[in-house]
Amino acid sequence: MKALATKFGWIGLKDFIRAVFTNAGVSSRDADIVADSLVQAELRGVESHGVVRLGIYLERVEKGMLDPHGQIECVHEGASSALLDGHNNFGAVIGVKALEVALSKARKQGVSMVGVKGSNHFGIGAYYALKAIEQDMILLVFSNASQTMPPTGGIRPFIGTNPFTVGVPAGKELPFVLDMATSVVARGKIIVAAEKHERIPEGWAINQDGYPTTDPVEALAGAVLPVGGAKGYGMSMFIDILSGVLTGAGFGKYVHNMYENWHDPQNVGHVFMAVDINQFIPLEIFKHRIDTYFQEIKAEPKAPGVDQILIPGEIEYFKTIERKKHGIDLPESVAEQLYTIGDKYSVNLDSAYYLD
Amino acid sequence: MKALATKFGWIGLKDFIRAVFTNAGVSSRDADIVADSLVQAELRGVESHGVVRLGIYLERVEKGMLDPHGQIECVHEGASSALLDGHNNFGAVIGVKALEVALSKARKQGVSMVGVKGSNHFGIGAYYALKAIEQDMILLVFSNASQTMPPTGGIRPFIGTNPFTVGVPAGKELPFVLDMATSVVARGKIIVAAEKHERIPEGWAINQDGYPTTDPVEALAGAVLPVGGAKGYGMSMFIDILSGVLTGAGFGKYVHNMYENWHDPQNVGHVFMAVDINQFIPLEIFKHRIDTYFQEIKAEPKAPGVDQILIPGEIEYFKTIERKKHGIDLPESVAEQLYTIGDKYSVNLDSAYYLD
Repeated sequence: MKALATKFGWIGLKDFIRAVFTNAGVSSRDADIVADSLVQAELRGVESHGVVRLGIYLERVEKGMLDPHGQIECVHEGASSALLDGHNNFGAVIGVKALEVALSKARKQGVSMVGVKGSNHFGIGAYYALKAIEQDMILLVFSNASQTMPPTGGIRPFIGTNPFTVGVPAGKELPFVLDMATSVVARGKIIVAAEKHERIPEGWAINQDGYPTTDPVEALAGAVLPVGGAKGYGMSMFIDILSGVLTGAGFGKYVHNMYENWHDPQNVGHVFMAVDINQFIPLEIFKHRIDTYFQEIKAEPKAPGVDQILIPGEIEYFKTIERKKHGIDLPESVAEQLYTIGDKYSVNLDSAYYLD
Repeated sequence: MKALATKFGWIGLKDFIRAVFTNAGVSSRDADIVADSLVQAELRGVESHGVVRLGIYLERVEKGMLDPHGQIECVHEGASSALLDGHNNFGAVIGVKALEVALSKARKQGVSMVGVKGSNHFGIGAYYALKAIEQDMILLVFSNASQTMPPTGGIRPFIGTNPFTVGVPAGKELPFVLDMATSVVARGKIIVAAEKHERIPEGWAINQDGYPTTDPVEALAGAVLPVGGAKGYGMSMFIDILSGVLTGAGFGKYVHNMYENWHDPQNVGHVFMAVDINQFIPLEIFKHRIDTYFQEIKAEPKAPGVDQILIPGEIEYFKTIERKKHGIDLPESVAEQLYTIGDKYSVNLDSAYYLD
């Protein structure tokens, strides 16, 4: 048995994923969105939200836990607001629709807010932020997630690492893309430490009894902590309130775990807020001002050992360019998953490999 | 010379501050707002934003750095958005006006966003959140501030501890009031550690050369760090972008320090976003859901040594009740300042003292 190639071209990878979804019964438009979202995550270096999720997405479709034919419905509409029911379609498909509504309403009214219920894991928030930036709009995205963090003072996961994303266009400078979870650190980093038998820093996690731990194995059995203690706890709660309590989606324990719950749809909730810059300041002046802001920050004196001061989104921007040019190197286990999936859905993986 | 009394009644204290401002040439309506904002901060236990600020507010008026007659102007208006120029009036006066516009627009359109330029230090964000909660509206408030934190990788203060506030009404439970700076910790805590000759924890601050320090004196000469490293840096930047770059207010070094700059108005910027709950879910259902959410969090098992799990705003709520009942104990130095101010503006402090 020859070793599996692990280097992929991003376009070939996207075509492969799209074909798999199409053969799984997803419309070609929706398959394109989900494939695009996964590959964009991979390009940006957010591997945890990349093609490694293809398997679980498919499995939820296969087992009837996600409905690729769910018709997204606008259940309530105000002049600058809307509430969508995703009817359990893919998170990215619902997210793109919510984004369109948010951008269109903001363009007419100045700002807008679109809430979403009945959704699923929607990939990286940056995916939507980049689309808004292309249209010169400011976007805020919030999503809740299944339980992974304790409340401050608690020991058991109750809130999700509920992320938020902000996208802001610039002029000559790179756009601002802040895409962060409200946890101290991604759970993935603790998994890596456990595999390498390394300790983790204090403050990352607690064990099952609620005590701080630097042992990654204990941490994984316990819970990852919110960023900045009570501050991250408050932010995560607020995101749950907006995305879940307000929209009618799940919140707290009512957002179901994609990997563990095979009885219920996830019922994730999101919120998309869009801002038309021109309603506040002419776009060209805004772009000039934000360029100045970024240039002044980058010109600041640097701490010992620091090469440059970065703007949020800058690392991911350059990683995208690099990976588009030189291919995406997947872990062998993930490449194997793709091969197996291709086999099952009769899509040849060969054309997805990176060619020099 | 007899010792100065240091315990004050909140109503008497507010009357005193209002009278001082009135005698300083402020209209009685505006004097009432600023007095209310300072006393509310004191009641909530946010002493850093309480009556200790009275002196500097007055000094800026005296020196022509703040214009108590500045007419707040709406310079741009969309259906759900507005941009106000505060024309250098008090931050709290401008903030209350911006809040009114935001609430009124959200009630008509579903959601709204009001940007503010030409403002000053606006006190605690919770002041506005509580007013929105009284009207059953969700409110987000952002403000920038003068430079106190370095960018990630920098050593010199460039961004402010730019705070944000979220207010959400509940049903039977207490409302949710998250009011936080984007720094790890208030600078005030480092000052206290320095006075007590205690070390500060790692991660709070860097020294003038950009190295981490646990020496509070070095820290005060250096800079306080953003919460969660690059996450807090990104959040602070985003708040500066929204409050400053977008509104036409100052940003970065163009937000002037209230204590140090005696040539320019501060030109602080704020943003108020309001959400009409009924545009997403009927208010009564929302209140039921949020009560459930809070009750479920509070029922979670607790970490060793923890009595109860708190909802953001809960500590401040009970502190307010306690201080309304038992008086506000000010440090002697602050009580002395009030006495001096009363003398200067011909307002008797006596009726502000707490009576059992």
